Amino acid sequence: MRMRRKKNLDKRLESCGNLIFSIESEDKNFNTAIEEKEYIDLEKWFGNSNPVRLEVGCGKGQFAAEIAKRNPDINYIAVEKCANVVVIAAERAIEENIPNLRFIKGSAEYLPKYLPDGIFDRVYLNFSCPFPKKKYANHRLTNRKFLAIFDRLMTTDGEIHQKTDNMHFFEYSIQEFSEYGMAIKNVSLDLHNSDFEGNIVTEYEKRFSDLGQPIYRLEAYKK
Amino acid sequence: MRMRRKKNLDKRLESCGNLIFSIESEDKNFNTAIEEKEYIDLEKWFGNSNPVRLEVGCGKGQFAAEIAKRNPDINYIAVEKCANVVVIAAERAIEENIPNLRFIKGSAEYLPKYLPDGIFDRVYLNFSCPFPKKKYANHRLTNRKFLAIFDRLMTTDGEIHQKTDNMHFFEYSIQEFSEYGMAIKNVSLDLHNSDFEGNIVTEYEKRFSDLGQPIYRLEAYKK
Repeated sequence: MRMRRKKNLDKRLESCGNLIFSIESEDKNFNTAIEEKEYIDLEKWFGNSNPVRLEVGCGKGQFAAEIAKRNPDINYIAVEKCANVVVIAAERAIEENIPNLRFIKGSAEYLPKYLPDGIFDRVYLNFSCPFPKKKYANHRLTNRKFLAIFDRLMTTDGEIHQKTDNMHFFEYSIQEFSEYGMAIKNVSLDLHNSDFEGNIVTEYEKRFSDLGQPIYRLEAYKK
Repeated sequence: MRMRRKKNLDKRLESCGNLIFSIESEDKNFNTAIEEKEYIDLEKWFGNSNPVRLEVGCGKGQFAAEIAKRNPDINYIAVEKCANVVVIAAERAIEENIPNLRFIKGSAEYLPKYLPDGIFDRVYLNFSCPFPKKKYANHRLTNRKFLAIFDRLMTTDGEIHQKTDNMHFFEYSIQEFSEYGMAIKNVSLDLHNSDFEGNIVTEYEKRFSDLGQPIYRLEAYKK
């Protein structure tokens, strides 16, 4: 079920000023689209040249807001394709006055059109949609198609940090990272009962963990 | 605690005839030892030139016996360093008349001294000792030191199939395979509730699974 576009959404998006960059050309042919570069001027956007990290699928932005607050000297771009949701994330960033957080409304496929290669040393995938049916496996954000995109956007020593509550999605992800040629480190098969420190627990994560569901986490990198 | 050598052990080992090859030179320097090749004549040992697969840490041999019976055209070598245990496995192979199963009593480190390179297309690690303390990590059979040994013994398209009930050992193994340059496929984080078919459930595996403990499994291969 597709969520209905909320009332006043356009106004609300607009009032988030330049915090949200909207990808509008999603109907165009993907391959053609990403060849016609329209790079965002990141230094201008953030007003500084600090390092930039990426979260893909930020939802209402709880993780992005928290990590941006904890690391004021790092800039964060949070990507979310659902307009209804990204607007909430951006309004929160304004309300909480988080200067180092920006949003891209759009699908991850189009990122290479707007972002130069080799800029992120960290890509976060938090509780991405698992697309449980096999026939939608290529929609999963750890599908090799997306890994190729993240790889392109990442520095050579870049890392993808993934968290999920979905066991089969995690199994799939390990295989896709492997198959793509990425190595895996710091695996947790039960994050909340591990010695991992500094985890940012979102409401979603807490809800699943409270149900006794283990949270899975890994870091993938190019060897 | 080291188990006491059982009464009549030598006699029992002897009565297993040429089913058990005993590595006796473990006190020698490891590196020197494996340079002085004393290859076992596998064709003579098995009486045929069928393909050969390896299990490392076979315990009382329940898995080895079962897989050998299911695949009469494949030869199996099961390795176990504890004499008290390997003798039980070998006696069982005699009792159940399994012609395609042989045993090596000794530590995995010494295998390259007695087995030529590139001969196994499959190495099984079933419920290997997890050595939970970090300082003994290099004793774990998925430590890169052992992976290098298995890699050497395996065909270029060889696979290591691992099963364990120990979560932290499995996390560690994923990382070690990765770090060593092996890719991972067919991951199960809850084997008994997966669609994996043909699993051989040993008593040990059943006991842990009955306690509600998930069984972890993966296949690692050189990319």
